[in-house]
Amino acid sequence: MAYTLAELAQHVNGRVVGDEACVIESVSTLDSGSDGSISFLTNPAYKKKLLKTSASAVILREADIDYCNVNAIVVEDPHSAYALIASLLYPATTKKHGIHDSAVVSENSQLPDSVWIDAGVIIGDDVVLGENVQISAGTVIESSVTIGNNSRILSNVTICHGTSIGEDALIHPGVVIGSDGFGQANNHGTWLKVPQLGNVVIGNDVEIGANTTIDRGAIEDTIIGNNVKLDNQIQVAHNVQIGAHTVISGCTGLAGSTRIGKHCAIGGAVTIVGHAEIADNVFITANSLVTNSINEPGVYSSGIPIDTNKNWQKNSIRFKQLDKLAKKIKQLEKQIELLEAKE
Amino acid sequence: MAYTLAELAQHVNGRVVGDEACVIESVSTLDSGSDGSISFLTNPAYKKKLLKTSASAVILREADIDYCNVNAIVVEDPHSAYALIASLLYPATTKKHGIHDSAVVSENSQLPDSVWIDAGVIIGDDVVLGENVQISAGTVIESSVTIGNNSRILSNVTICHGTSIGEDALIHPGVVIGSDGFGQANNHGTWLKVPQLGNVVIGNDVEIGANTTIDRGAIEDTIIGNNVKLDNQIQVAHNVQIGAHTVISGCTGLAGSTRIGKHCAIGGAVTIVGHAEIADNVFITANSLVTNSINEPGVYSSGIPIDTNKNWQKNSIRFKQLDKLAKKIKQLEKQIELLEAKE
Amino acid sequence: MAYTLAELAQHVNGRVVGDEACVIESVSTLDSGSDGSISFLTNPAYKKKLLKTSASAVILREADIDYCNVNAIVVEDPHSAYALIASLLYPATTKKHGIHDSAVVSENSQLPDSVWIDAGVIIGDDVVLGENVQISAGTVIESSVTIGNNSRILSNVTICHGTSIGEDALIHPGVVIGSDGFGQANNHGTWLKVPQLGNVVIGNDVEIGANTTIDRGAIEDTIIGNNVKLDNQIQVAHNVQIGAHTVISGCTGLAGSTRIGKHCAIGGAVTIVGHAEIADNVFITANSLVTNSINEPGVYSSGIPIDTNKNWQKNSIRFKQLDKLAKKIKQLEKQIELLEAKE
Repeated sequence: MAYTLAELAQHVNGRVVGDEACVIESVSTLDSGSDGSISFLTNPAYKKKLLKTSASAVILREADIDYCNVNAIVVEDPHSAYALIASLLYPATTKKHGIHDSAVVSENSQLPDSVWIDAGVIIGDDVVLGENVQISAGTVIESSVTIGNNSRILSNVTICHGTSIGEDALIHPGVVIGSDGFGQANNHGTWLKVPQLGNVVIGNDVEIGANTTIDRGAIEDTIIGNNVKLDNQIQVAHNVQIGAHTVISGCTGLAGSTRIGKHCAIGGAVTIVGHAEIADNVFITANSLVTNSINEPGVYSSGIPIDTNKNWQKNSIRFKQLDKLAKKIKQLEKQIELLEAKE
Repeated sequence: MAYTLAELAQHVNGRVVGDEACVIESVSTLDSGSDGSISFLTNPAYKKKLLKTSASAVILREADIDYCNVNAIVVEDPHSAYALIASLLYPATTKKHGIHDSAVVSENSQLPDSVWIDAGVIIGDDVVLGENVQISAGTVIESSVTIGNNSRILSNVTICHGTSIGEDALIHPGVVIGSDGFGQANNHGTWLKVPQLGNVVIGNDVEIGANTTIDRGAIEDTIIGNNVKLDNQIQVAHNVQIGAHTVISGCTGLAGSTRIGKHCAIGGAVTIVGHAEIADNVFITANSLVTNSINEPGVYSSGIPIDTNKNWQKNSIRFKQLDKLAKKIKQLEKQIELLEAKE
Repeated sequence: MAYTLAELAQHVNGRVVGDEACVIESVSTLDSGSDGSISFLTNPAYKKKLLKTSASAVILREADIDYCNVNAIVVEDPHSAYALIASLLYPATTKKHGIHDSAVVSENSQLPDSVWIDAGVIIGDDVVLGENVQISAGTVIESSVTIGNNSRILSNVTICHGTSIGEDALIHPGVVIGSDGFGQANNHGTWLKVPQLGNVVIGNDVEIGANTTIDRGAIEDTIIGNNVKLDNQIQVAHNVQIGAHTVISGCTGLAGSTRIGKHCAIGGAVTIVGHAEIADNVFITANSLVTNSINEPGVYSSGIPIDTNKNWQKNSIRFKQLDKLAKKIKQLEKQIELLEAKE
């Protein structure tokens, strides 16, 4: 697709500085700009790249306009504006409609004409798909699943029975939604399976990254709010609730019955233990361990950043003496107090 | 399914308090109870929910009966009893028999009439399936795999060649069993693949969570004992051995040749390095790092729970000074000793 | 396959000690050796196993020959020699050629006669496969993918549109390559998807473990160098670059735009935050957290190894007082200095 700078600026409520008729047909980084490409600047650290860019135009903030030798669209938030413009320039793949010959669709599932069911897809009984739903190759939709309008389920995904997914979802390859939660009862040393009878209920405008897993609830449902964005390889255990507009980065694990608030940002490889409740607007940095509820908004962290192996070996041994060292310090304080008193 | 309270109590060796003829047809939480539902109480912290439940009956311990205003089944272990009763009320999906038209089954594999092979399943040469085995849609069973009676392999699973799975297994979607172990030999800076020639041998009554991976052995086999329960996204490297009745929570990684004992409980996101040997009855809490063998039963932990980012920044820098701080404390002790001696 | 010891020795530039005509047809551990098997010794700790092995021959270093009572192949690097010999004895499964009836291949994709496309494979438009490429059951190759000669893509893999894979690749089951990177722009509290427009470009002789995910670049490409070896369940975010001859163990996560050098070895369950640059020849031990670039070759570590839960509880609380404790030590130093001065 191609648009003039004026059209693009209008699309993002921005202001053109330079040639409004300039035709844009691709995006680029500042470094790799070319004729007809548009780039963006959010991080002021890259200002000097702006000076040298060969992109045809750059999306930027008012404050950065002086560093720009090419056309510009001035906006408040260049990252959002870039997202909107890139979506316009590169619309999601041309939509097909119909059902591929090799797909297996239960006759009990009524699909609108507007859906696209790709090769090798398998759709069970009583599945309800909204308008324009797209299911990519090799994906399995089990019985009694509901998927809202315009949602796209990519390849080799498994959506287990009874799952409900809202509108405008984007589910990446290898995702599993609605697998059994990890419910095991110890009966004199032998583990008995606790049937997992709840479902997974997912709101609108949710994106779920490759190979992420979301378990069904034990009795009640696992719930993912509107506009939640999950990265790859996240584990969401049974009965977790994730509030609207929360983003979670890759490799993070949420144990059973965790409740995450709205507008949270959870970093990658975070572990949150079961039944923790996380307030709205909480930010947790990568690799943190959350063993308790967090009641106040704010930024939270844990973990030990790397050191040379030699130093780490010494220090990690000392960690195991920390309590003793702290007590020794207390004792030294007393001794010094005594010495001082005697003078 | 529906049962009287008397029937359910008999099933779990429990005692009815209240109306033995009361008909139960569903399970519920204490909060969401309804007419005909049965709930359970294990954690005494929820006793006050018991007072207000609208479930028709509750499974509980003798000690909690006074707080119960509805019918009850009194047992020693309400969680196990609940598991048994829920399994009775919600039997695994009605079993089909036969082979779906779209499945591809090698003519060299003889399957009993009692199996159900769903749409899009692919079964290689010389596969041996027990009675009532169920293979769900899109799953690939490579050559020379053996699966015992009543095992269920859910959707989009890959069972690689030569894998042996016992009876009553439940393998969740996206699982990979028998992939190559990570064997690489460094030949003057270039990595050569070390062929992975062992298999994976899995006992009876094993459950394996969504997207978990279990690698085949390098020369000998990777071995998973009876009644082992693995959660989602666990990585089991080549030649790992996991003893019977051990449970492992999600996102945990076991490096090559690790041996886990019997009746262990490993938390989520634990990392166990290669060749570690873990005794029976070891409990490891979430997010721990195990760098050595553990020879004694007990509870083990590591990791740093979160703090505010501000505090964490100060403290994590201090971690890198720990050894110096410890040495300084020792020096201060000496100085104080000298001062004290001089008095 | 079967070879004489002389033939095997020649294959690895080794020297036979003992019977050159001895026929070898299998590999074994030192413990499980049998007639016709060959084993190897790399770790001197296992020398005493060498004394008792019942293997027909052992691959070992000159220094260990005196402990060997059976035939031997003497080489500089027994692990590499073992890899080469095992590959010779156990060649990759007999190659089939052709396209299985149940595979769905776009008529716009021209496949050489030498390829093998297994049951249930789905191949999109404009896919280019090299000679002898093998695609296993249930795998989805989206449009415009290129795969080089002799590469093997195993079962239930998803290769997303535009991905380029070099020669001699081995991609294990459940892998996803080319899924969208995690690009989200916050627009007044609502997350907007940032289109992911780059591709994934993978060099020659790359192995990728089960259920690993590699995201496409946001604008430019995600790049995996030649002879890179990735274990299972690794997450590679958008625009990551991994240099040639680097190995990464399971469960490790590389955040967006991370650059890993050549000849690095990254342990399991490591977390590397976004935009970090790791020099060549860096070794990072398991479970480390990398929050900054590493500019010098060497061994780096972090993380806290386990302790008994009782000790850990005390020490992990003290971690949160570390900065205060350090300041207290400084104050004690001053007080002691004063006391010493007064004498």
